[in-house]
Formats: sequence, C-alpha cells, structure tokens
Amino acid sequence: MRTIIALSILLSLQATPFAQTTTNYVKHVNPLIGTQKMGHTFPGATVPFGSVQLSPDTDQQPHNVGGKYNKDTYKYCAGYQYDDTEIVGFSHTHFSGTGHSDLGDFLVMPTVGPLQLEPGTKGDPKSGFRSAYSHANETAEAGYYKVKLDDDNIFAEMTATTRVGMHQYTFPASDNSHIILDLMHGIYNYEDKNVWTFVRVENDHTIVGYRQTNGWARTRTVYFAMEFSKPFASYGFKDFGKQDYRGFWRKFDQSKNFPEAAGKQIRANFDFKTTANEKIKIKFALSPVSTNGAVSNLRSEIPHWDFERVKREAQGAWNKELSKIAVTTIDQGEMTNFYTAMYHALLTPTVYMDTDGQYKGLDQNVHKAAAGTTNYTTFSLWDTYRALHPLLNLIQPSRNRDMVRSMQAHYDQSVHKMLPVWSHYANENWCMIGYHSVSVIADAIVTGNLTGPEAIKALEASAQTARTKYYDGLEFYMQLGYVPEDKNGSSVSKTLEYAYDDWAIAQAAKKLRKTAIYNEFIKRSENWRNVYDAKSGFMRPRMSDGRFREKFDVLSTHDQGFIEGNAWNYSLYVPHDPAGMIELRGGQKKFTEHLDELFTMHLPDEFFAETEDITREGIIGNYVHGNEPAHHAAYLYNWTDSPWKTQERVRMILKNQYRPTPDGLGGNDDCGQMSAWYLFTALGFTQSLPALANIRSAARSSKPRPST
Amino acid sequence: MRTIIALSILLSLQATPFAQTTTNYVKHVNPLIGTQKMGHTFPGATVPFGSVQLSPDTDQQPHNVGGKYNKDTYKYCAGYQYDDTEIVGFSHTHFSGTGHSDLGDFLVMPTVGPLQLEPGTKGDPKSGFRSAYSHANETAEAGYYKVKLDDDNIFAEMTATTRVGMHQYTFPASDNSHIILDLMHGIYNYEDKNVWTFVRVENDHTIVGYRQTNGWARTRTVYFAMEFSKPFASYGFKDFGKQDYRGFWRKFDQSKNFPEAAGKQIRANFDFKTTANEKIKIKFALSPVSTNGAVSNLRSEIPHWDFERVKREAQGAWNKELSKIAVTTIDQGEMTNFYTAMYHALLTPTVYMDTDGQYKGLDQNVHKAAAGTTNYTTFSLWDTYRALHPLLNLIQPSRNRDMVRSMQAHYDQSVHKMLPVWSHYANENWCMIGYHSVSVIADAIVTGNLTGPEAIKALEASAQTARTKYYDGLEFYMQLGYVPEDKNGSSVSKTLEYAYDDWAIAQAAKKLRKTAIYNEFIKRSENWRNVYDAKSGFMRPRMSDGRFREKFDVLSTHDQGFIEGNAWNYSLYVPHDPAGMIELRGGQKKFTEHLDELFTMHLPDEFFAETEDITREGIIGNYVHGNEPAHHAAYLYNWTDSPWKTQERVRMILKNQYRPTPDGLGGNDDCGQMSAWYLFTALGFTQSLPALANIRSAARSSKPRPST
Repeated sequence: MRTIIALSILLSLQATPFAQTTTNYVKHVNPLIGTQKMGHTFPGATVPFGSVQLSPDTDQQPHNVGGKYNKDTYKYCAGYQYDDTEIVGFSHTHFSGTGHSDLGDFLVMPTVGPLQLEPGTKGDPKSGFRSAYSHANETAEAGYYKVKLDDDNIFAEMTATTRVGMHQYTFPASDNSHIILDLMHGIYNYEDKNVWTFVRVENDHTIVGYRQTNGWARTRTVYFAMEFSKPFASYGFKDFGKQDYRGFWRKFDQSKNFPEAAGKQIRANFDFKTTANEKIKIKFALSPVSTNGAVSNLRSEIPHWDFERVKREAQGAWNKELSKIAVTTIDQGEMTNFYTAMYHALLTPTVYMDTDGQYKGLDQNVHKAAAGTTNYTTFSLWDTYRALHPLLNLIQPSRNRDMVRSMQAHYDQSVHKMLPVWSHYANENWCMIGYHSVSVIADAIVTGNLTGPEAIKALEASAQTARTKYYDGLEFYMQLGYVPEDKNGSSVSKTLEYAYDDWAIAQAAKKLRKTAIYNEFIKRSENWRNVYDAKSGFMRPRMSDGRFREKFDVLSTHDQGFIEGNAWNYSLYVPHDPAGMIELRGGQKKFTEHLDELFTMHLPDEFFAETEDITREGIIGNYVHGNEPAHHAAYLYNWTDSPWKTQERVRMILKNQYRPTPDGLGGNDDCGQMSAWYLFTALGFTQSLPALANIRSAARSSKPRPST
Repeated sequence: MRTIIALSILLSLQATPFAQTTTNYVKHVNPLIGTQKMGHTFPGATVPFGSVQLSPDTDQQPHNVGGKYNKDTYKYCAGYQYDDTEIVGFSHTHFSGTGHSDLGDFLVMPTVGPLQLEPGTKGDPKSGFRSAYSHANETAEAGYYKVKLDDDNIFAEMTATTRVGMHQYTFPASDNSHIILDLMHGIYNYEDKNVWTFVRVENDHTIVGYRQTNGWARTRTVYFAMEFSKPFASYGFKDFGKQDYRGFWRKFDQSKNFPEAAGKQIRANFDFKTTANEKIKIKFALSPVSTNGAVSNLRSEIPHWDFERVKREAQGAWNKELSKIAVTTIDQGEMTNFYTAMYHALLTPTVYMDTDGQYKGLDQNVHKAAAGTTNYTTFSLWDTYRALHPLLNLIQPSRNRDMVRSMQAHYDQSVHKMLPVWSHYANENWCMIGYHSVSVIADAIVTGNLTGPEAIKALEASAQTARTKYYDGLEFYMQLGYVPEDKNGSSVSKTLEYAYDDWAIAQAAKKLRKTAIYNEFIKRSENWRNVYDAKSGFMRPRMSDGRFREKFDVLSTHDQGFIEGNAWNYSLYVPHDPAGMIELRGGQKKFTEHLDELFTMHLPDEFFAETEDITREGIIGNYVHGNEPAHHAAYLYNWTDSPWKTQERVRMILKNQYRPTPDGLGGNDDCGQMSAWYLFTALGFTQSLPALANIRSAARSSKPRPST
C-alpha cells in the first residue's frame, strides 16, 4: 500500500527563485526505469529540458526494409533496450517515451585495435565497432551515465549541459585507439533517411558539421561542433553512399587526413595513441542554426575540460528542479517512482535555440527568440495536453509560458496558420489527431500564466487553427457537427477531441471576454453528442448521410472510428462535460456499473495485438493505461455515486503501471505524459479534465472513501 | 580584313563614375553568339555580373545514365542549344561558356490546356510541357529575351535585375492556363542530384522555397521567392520521388491546394483563367541564404510590376558597362563581335549575396560582406586568370577588387586554407589544376588595385595556398621541383602552371617587399625547367626517380602528362619567362619555325576527338584556341625575330574563332575568358603573359610588321 507521509509542493506561478535545497533528490532518480519493453525512455545524460540527450544506443533497427515497415524498429524509439547486451555507441539526441521516433544524431563510439567502421550485427559484438556490456557495469543517474564497454575494456562516461554533451572515455594502453563518429546512425533510420551530411576537421582536435534527415521530421538539420581534449594522431572518412556525385574531388585521397567530407552515408574515425587509463574527453555541442552556432554553444556552455564539474552542475540543475516538490515516503521504491516520474516529466519539450537566441523556424528561416525567452521544440501534444503541460504550468510556469510562446512562433511561421499538432526540430510531423495546443494555451490563459496582448494573440491563433478546413475532417466537422467516417477515418476520436479542444478555446475566450470566439466554440464543444449512439450506448462512427455505421465492434481498435483505442475507452472521452456524458448514458448508477465492467472485463489479445502503443502490460481489464485516450477514466467515478472508486482504481493503476524497475512503465512514457499522470495522481489531483480544471477539481477527487 | 578605325578605352583604376553615354551599345550585343555547338553561352536575360541568368533551356540531358557519363550532356552546359527546336522552360541560373556544368534552377513554363507535368521527350513537344519554337520568333538582347511558344501560342518575355528575374507571359484566352514550376529540372542533372527541395505557397500569389543539389558544387542550396502579378485560381504539387518518407503527411491530399511540399523530385502547377492577350507576370528572386532573403531581394529590387521599366533599367545597366570601351568599326559584324565579347566578359563572376550583404560561405555558415563591398561567386580560375580578370582589373577595378576580396573570404572560410581553384555557390569544385587565384591577386596587387593590409593578407593567403601539401602533387613538386607523373597525373601541366603561379606570388611579394616569400616563390618559379626534355624538344612527363617517362606522344592529349592539351601546345607554357623558354629550346630562329609548324601542321582527328573542351572548330593546325593552355602561343612570336607574325596569327584567330553568328565561337567561352582574349587582342594588348604583364607588354606586341 502506497503511503505518502509528507508532501509539500513548492508552487509559484511567478517563478520566484527557490531557496537552495540540501536534500539530494537526484539519488531517487533511476533513468533506467522504462528502458525495458515499451517505456521508450533513454538512460543517458541530459539536463532539465536539455537540447542534448547523450545516451547509449543498443541497436539500430531500420524503420523499413524493402519499403515495408519493420515492426522491430518500434522497440528502439529511444535507441536503448534494456535486454540488449551490446552498445553500438552514444548518440546525442533522443526522444523520451515516444511511440514513433526520429533523432539518434551523431553516434560516437570509442574502440581499440584494428579499425572497424561498420557497427556490426546484433549478437556478434566482434563483427563491428559495437561492444558487449553488462548492467553490472552500468550506472545511470540524472545527468550522468557510465558503462564499461567490455570488448575493448573502455570506460565510457557522459554528462551534459543544455546544448553540449560531454564524453569521458578511459582507454587502455594502445597505439591503436579510435573514436568513431557515425553520421549514418539514427533512430527510425532507413536507407534514404540521411538527406545529406557535411563534416569539416577544423584543426587537430575540432570537427564541425551537420546531419540533414527526412524522417518523422520531414526537413530536419542538426549542426554540431565536436572538440577533443587531445589532438588526434590521424583521422579518416569513409563514404558508404553509392550515388553521390564525386566530381573533381576524386583528385584527393579523401579517406585519410583529408579535412572535409560530404555525402549521404559517412563515418569518420579519429585515431590516438593512449596510455593505460588515459582519459580522452569530448565536448559535443548541437545547434539548430549552424556550425558556427554550435561552436559558440560549445564555448559558452563548457569553457573548460572539467568533466566532474559539468556532472556536478548537471546534477545540481536536476536537484533544483526536482526539489520543487518535496515528498517523503517510507518505501524507497516509492521515492524512486516519484522522482523518476518527475525526472521524466522534466525532459520534454526541449530547448531549441542557440545561446544567442537564434533557432530555425518552421519556415526553415533563422529566427531569434525575444530577449529573456526560450524557444522550445518537441511538442507531443496529443499526449502532453492532458497532464504534462498542466503540470509544467504549475511547477514550471515560466518555462510553460515560453513553451506557449514557442507554439505561437510555430503558428506565426506556419504556412497553414496552425498551432503545432506534433512538432519537433522546426517541423510539423502531424502525428495523431486534434489541435491540442489550444488546450495548453487555454490552460495558460485561464490560470493567468499568459496575459495581455500575448494571450489575445494566442487565443486568435487557437481559433484560427480550429478553422483549418483541410485539416483532418475539420470542414465536415464544421458543416455537420461531427467528422463522418466515410469521409475521414478515426472519425469518432476526432469528433470527441475537437469538441474538447473547442471547449478549451471557449474557456480562454471567456477569460479574455472575446464573446464571438466564445460563442463560436462553446457551440462546437457540444459536438460530442453527435456521435453518441444511444442504441449501443457507445460513441459510434457516423456517416455523412447522418446514419451510424452498421459495422461496429466495441472492442476492436481497428477501423472502428477510433485511433489507438476502442469504443469502450474512447466513449468515455468528454472531459469537459462528464456529467452530461453520464446523464446521456443513463445516469450515475448505470455508468458506475459500466466503469466497473471496463476495469474488470477480459479483453482478448486479438483486440490490441495489432495496435502500436497498446500492449498487454498497459491494460487493466479493458482499460488501457498504456496509452492516453482513457487516462481520465478512473476519475470518472467522481461524477457517480461511488467517488471512492476513483481512489481505488487510481491506486491500483499507480501500483500496477509504475514500478521502480527497468520494465516498470506499462506503456510509452510519451514525452512525460505518463509520468505527469503519475505525479498528479500521487499528489491527489484529478486527471478527469485535461488541462483547465486540474486545480479546481482537486477537491472533488479527494472525497473520502468509505472505510473498508 | 578587320579594321578598327576608332578606339577609346575609358580606363580608371579609381573607378570614377563615368559620364552618361547616349551611344546605344546594347544594340551591338547578340546573346545568341556561342549558343550553337560548343560556345556554351546562354541567350537569356541577365544584368552585368547578375545573380540571375533567366534563360530558356532547350533540353535536359542527364549527366549520367546507369552510372555512366552521358556525353550528350556536354552540349547543354548552358541549357540551350541553338539547333534544338523546343524549349522546355525558363530557368534562373546558368553558367556562361563553361566546359562542365551545374545550375538550371527553378524552371518555369507557361502552358495552356490539359495539365502536363512531365517535360516530354525531345522531338515530340506534344508529349509534355515543352513547346516548339522557332528562331524567327525569338529575340535575344542584353537584358531581355523574348520567344513565342508555338504549342500554346504564348509569348514569353524576360528581363532581370541583379537578384530577380522578371517573366511576362502573354496568354491566349483559356480557362485552363498554367504556369509550371519544375524543381526537378537542372543542368548536368542526374537522378540523385536533387538532395532536397522545399516549397511553400505563402498566399494566392507568392511561393517560396529552395533547391539543394549535389553536383559540380557538392553541397549547394539556392533559395527563391516567386510572386505572380495575378492570384492563381488553384495549384498543385506532384512528388515524382520514390523513396521519400511520407509519414503522417499522408493524412492530407497534398496534390491539390495544399500549401507546402518537400522532397527530392517535385513539380508544381499554378492554374489561371486568362483572357486573350492577358499578361501574367512573375518576379522570381534568388538568395544564397534563405527564403526570407529572397523575399527581401524581390521587394527591394523590383517593388512594382512594370516589366518595361525593369527591361529599360537592365539595358541601361548594360549600356553603362559596355560604354567603358568606345569602339567604332565599319563592319557591323565587327561591332557585334566586339560588344558581344564585352557582354560575355561582364557576366561572370556573379554577385553572391543578398541586398543586406549576407551570403552563405564555403563553410556553409552565413556571412556578411563588409559594408560597401560585394561578394561574388563562380570563379573559373584556370580559365579566367589569363585574360578575364586582367581585363576586369582594368575596366572594372572596383568589382575586380571585390572579387579578390571574395577569394580572400573563400580562403578564410576554407578548411584547407586555400584560395579558390574553381568555386561556385559556396563550394569548391576543384575543377582543373593550379592555384591561379594567386595570379589574379598578384595582378591586383602589382597594379595597385589592392593595397595595404588587405594586400598583405592576400599575399599570405596566396603563399599558404601554394604550400598545401596534399593538393594535387604539391608535396612532390615542393620536394623534387616537379610533379612526378607516376605519383600524380597531368604532371607536366601541373608543374608548368605551378611555376607560373609561383612567379605571380613572387611578383606580389616583391611589390609588398616581403622578401622571404619572394625568395621562396621566385625559386619555385624556375621549376618549369625541370620538365623540359632537351632530347625531344618538348616538356615531358618525368618520373619520381628523375627519369623522363619513356612512353611519349607529343600529339595526344590522353595520358601524356597534360590536361586538355598536348605536348605541342603545353610545352609553350612558360608565360613568365618566354625568353628563357625560347633560349632553352634552341633560340629564336628554331623556335619561330616550331611555332610556324604548330599553326600549320595537320592534327589528325584522333588526337582531340576524345578530349572534352577541344573540338575541330577550335583548332588551327595543331594550335588549339578553343581551349586555354596555348592562348598565349601566337604572342610568342614577339620574343622571336619575327614579331609581326603575332599580328598575322592573332588576326587569323580573331577572324576564324570569333564570328557574329550563333556558331561563332570556336570553343567554350569559359566564363568570359575567350571573350576577354578577343577584347585584349582586338585592342592591341598582348596575351603572352597572363595577368601581370598585360599593360607592360602592350608596347612590345604592337611592334610594326614589315609591309607585305
């Protein structure tokens, strides 16, 4: 039984500086949680909201093979799988907990002995530069990662600042030590994903360049600057690409000590003589703008070679943020759960600008964030509007305000005049459904975190986004009051989520006294009623002629009008009017029985086996906690005559779905959304209303349950 | 017989403003000269040194087919071949006269009727958007081009400013008029040349985007902004690429009225209803930096829709530059030859920066030219150090100084710390041999056009460039005094050209009193003697063991130690010491006979048929005027007892190799080098010494010839 015995939340909407704390919260963070099975977290080093996530990749499964999607790639959304026994290298960018992926830029790997420029094959570490490792020799902390690479007896350590990853490799004595820089490597990689790479060796210890990819982000470039603590003795490039134009470059031997390379498939090696236990350090800076930007970031963030200092400062930064909620539990596992969830909730969105404020915008032009503000990227909004952004709006109000500003900048740069749907690295990837930026913005406006002309501008952007006719069935939704399944798939999910988003816009409009917008969207927010089928008692796909679709399987997630969920789960999604939804479905008693059935019925494997993002581990009865659509379901008992059942269910979920072990997460952490759900729930806040109502509803969710 | 009856050269090393002239020199320019056969000039619209060369492309031959070089591509170095009977469209960038190629960015083509998004096949204009045309309906002027597109009865007109091309299409009445924007099209194109393209439709009349290619320039991106005078009714994109990742973009119908596209192979159509004789105009701006840069360039250079005004100003700009040399001849053909040569000499290098001074540097970072200076690109230096830059140093001293500054910026941005060899669009393409930037710089220094700290910096850059060990045999050259053929091919050409370049560095060092550099390089300048084989009487490939290579064919251009020339032509290349060379070869009399033989002997076809850049048209005896290595040969009579033969030979060359007809050029104009040779020669200046000695040697070349 979970017992939180002391809790103090240090909240400040004014973001006043916190007193230095002496409590070491970092020791309760275990970045390995979620790295086994489907948590899709990464164990490597990063700072809160850092641009660099320097982390080991244990394999690189191609996203597709011969044009067909490769299912094995899904395990590697964060590059690392706990069950793997080899590390391919350490790359600098990783999403935390996503259910689709990208990144994995700039893999670095130290080796000793004959140069191997191929990563080798899984299960055969001697076949390439990959190395065997074991968890016994692995340490993962907030801001620090260490592992022994067994093949060559090299100790690898890493830490980070916001924009710079710092490596420290302890080599054995060898005349033949190497550090490999692999520009081909990537997450969700495939043959043609590298659009272009470019590298220059500026001097005997500095390399700059960039990697341009076409993946989840369609047009994405990351620039780098890499500096070694010791000059390399020699170096080389190998281009594994087949079709690049070589031209008059053929006059050079470009394989050895030739200081520039460009092409689609390049790996580089830097060669050293090392003495026993000699440490070679690397500072590796990223920039969204240019190699010059990366060099500036490198120099301004780590102007020294003191690895321990960078580690100390990274962990200090973590402790500062983690100490914003002071919790004490008797069970150390609970402490680990809590502060690891908090750690995971403070990874994303990530800072996306150089130290001088410049960043690449959605229009691919270079922009500059306003003085004193920070531009962010990686908005997994279908997930994070539910709990993560509401959490950040409470415990990171200044950052959350800048995140809203980053969404506004995205809108301003958008040729569609749309707020982000799922955006990363100056790209909109359009993943999932809805326009949930508006919920995050409304939350910031309603809570007073975003005010004045900025709030009005953000409201107008929200309304304009919601009027984009060609977006995902919106034209039909605006005409008919629902998305017709024969015109646009996953139509019920879309209708329900649009209706909620519309309500969010209306709340912001109300706060800002914009009556016309309020009227327009409060009306739209009732559209959820249009897909309720009283006959079946479920939300159901409706056709453009007004009829409900005949074919209907309330358990299946496949082609039933829903996305990543079935009718059982999605039919509960009216977060802005649970009372109305319950009434429509026959009142509190009947609804309580319905909810009880959800949590206790048996869902045969066939109904989720084919749906990415839903796994057996994340399912309780037919309730799917491993994915987001019903994250508020357990809280719906609060609107029935059995509100204590909320406490019963959420405690079961906390215990069942969050454990302090590598396989402890029941589903993708989704950029911190699952962790934020944990935090709100553990702290006693309801999740029944995404965004706006968290605080207001807190009292309701804490109704006492009868003694058992 | 050519008779120049009046000549005044308005030279000013101080670049004082010239008085407005009322003489119309533009009427003597015929941009069609050189468009037939191997001149490789383009007929379209541009301004002096303009960034935009808006010109018709008559075909697009792939650079390679199935991995094999396609010889037919060579004809299309400038996109246009006079003998072709169809125009594919009008693209915005073209080299003038090169013997390898690139560019052809952003093809625009108006059509009427059912939309065709394929260019179609040569000889079958109905098979695609290409159209038949005839020269009878074609007008090419400096700064203006007009043609009737027969297929759809459309009149196409174009003019330009420095950074903006302006189109004017006169349509017939149609509900089905289109303007196609082809981002796949290119010159020296091949399947994988497009690395990435990106397009956005900003509103109903504005498009922005970029094209990134891997071709002669390895890493090249050109940004654009395109504005229509009339809103389009609808538009579409089609991606002809196969492997691009589509991801969640699939949720949209991206083919019709969807405002952004990205991928490797994209074409777009913009649809209009047109009334009879309705004119649709387009302003199409380029930028080396960003789409925002292109928009700024567009707005600042053409803030109106007056096509005639842009044309008038373009031709005014031409007249201003052409009037710097006032020549009158009786024969109108001579006038056309002269002013067309001058036109061709004032096309390249081209301005390479936005109106705000920003440009992309060789390091792929954005740089800014110093206030009041202009950054240039396209330095075809193996060609242009000979006559073009010396000419510009005289008649465009301010621009030539900025060109030298652009070379210096290239050096500063170069990871090799080398001045440009053959550079274009923020890339070094390494074409041909030598390091002839140093000659252009030395010319500017010796003539006093570049002075002070800039001159010293440029001298040091020259010396440093010449010491780059891994460049093209330089390490051996520095060790042995020659490039050994067994270590590095074309070794004799390299040795001879390095020796001349070294002499040029020495002259600049002398002027700047840098004794150490002078001593180092004046010594190296004697290295030409090391490849002279007294036994054969020719410069001859030498091996690293010191012996001359046995195998030796003095007529062949293939694998004989020379590049784009044979021993007969290249053995004359000691431009800095003709007297020494003549003495070594047995004195004036013997050498005169040798030269006579060169100009009169018969060279069998087999000896040039396989060498690109050398064609029958460009050959007189065994003297190859169509390519550069012996461009000074006719002037060498000046160092013999028969100096009048120079006049005889050069007049024959002028008459034979330069004619006022489309097929009038005997070889590639090579970015104006062939034309600059014409101009110097027609004006009575010697070409025997590239660069430095043009003025000093003028007196010598004008020795009277005996009456015949």
